[in-house]
Amino acid sequence: MSDLRICFVGDSFVNGIGDSEGLGWAGRICRAARGRGVVITRYDLGVRRDTSTLILRRCVAEVSARLDAVPCDGRVVFSFGVDDATDESGRRRVEPAQTLANAEELLEWSSRRYPTLMVGPPPLVGDAAYDARIVTLVPALAQLCSRRDIPFLDLHGPLARGETWRAEALVGDGAHPDAGGYARAAEVIEAWEPWRRWTR
Amino acid sequence: MSDLRICFVGDSFVNGIGDSEGLGWAGRICRAARGRGVVITRYDLGVRRDTSTLILRRCVAEVSARLDAVPCDGRVVFSFGVDDATDESGRRRVEPAQTLANAEELLEWSSRRYPTLMVGPPPLVGDAAYDARIVTLVPALAQLCSRRDIPFLDLHGPLARGETWRAEALVGDGAHPDAGGYARAAEVIEAWEPWRRWTR
Repeated sequence: MSDLRICFVGDSFVNGIGDSEGLGWAGRICRAARGRGVVITRYDLGVRRDTSTLILRRCVAEVSARLDAVPCDGRVVFSFGVDDATDESGRRRVEPAQTLANAEELLEWSSRRYPTLMVGPPPLVGDAAYDARIVTLVPALAQLCSRRDIPFLDLHGPLARGETWRAEALVGDGAHPDAGGYARAAEVIEAWEPWRRWTR
Repeated sequence: MSDLRICFVGDSFVNGIGDSEGLGWAGRICRAARGRGVVITRYDLGVRRDTSTLILRRCVAEVSARLDAVPCDGRVVFSFGVDDATDESGRRRVEPAQTLANAEELLEWSSRRYPTLMVGPPPLVGDAAYDARIVTLVPALAQLCSRRDIPFLDLHGPLARGETWRAEALVGDGAHPDAGGYARAAEVIEAWEPWRRWTR
């Protein structure tokens, strides 16, 4: 039996904020894998309001403490970007070039040590201008991952085109959905070949 | 609306290892609180095989990154001890005096900054000698918490006296239960007045 331990590193969407079932998409895809007989130790390293700059400050210490203490099949899934694109009094929290530099550093460090995936940021449905800033990050992150042979999943497209995520986020805080939105995100990731390869 | 964010700092039992529903006791008590209208951001800082010595190395950085970046109602729940009591080739991973010194340092740091609770270690049902070493830690940790006015919950007693935790752990890896055991642990914590005060 393999000893699969996965760090999910990112922001409030990784943590599953808003989900009344307390699982988020990461909890759901790990629970589904277990249903297929694949037991995963899930380390939730999603922190609210964390930009890629803040993630970079804590990632190495937090992931190492979880994956390097004992021999195990350690892996990492990143997902961030929404908080980078926040506008604060006319200034963006993290400029796109910096987001990409941070992502490059995170992905390089991780992929040299562990199998690594990246899930792109979800839509921010309550604010069109904000969401437009997120949209521009998606292909840039995808390209960066592609150059390093790290599988990248566009989560924004499917969630923005669907109804559940949008409807629940608008009822909630304008950003985070409830259980239905996270279930939909989990469905998209479950259908993604790189994740299936990890968990079959 | 308050912005309650709780770091659950500890070991594999805090992480909920073995739980096919992927929530553990911490996920369940937060979900139950939400059912009462109390929304909690849950930060799971439970790491497999972590002794109090290892927890001490990461606690300040990990908790600070989650509770200090923005104004919020940050709190901490500790739960550890089982891995300290592990016997490795005739040597205990952490001697009781060191466990207590570590606990003192953790509790002092935390309780000066955040409302803090401690949940005692659960039983290790698959190994009587191992469990006896855990049992001796419980009153010592309780006393230490009492001196600092930090509420301490004996989880070992109720779980060792009941059937669910024991039965599921024995079917599993001898240490970790499945959903039923964690649900029983959550029930015990839910009935604990200090936790109720935080979440009503």
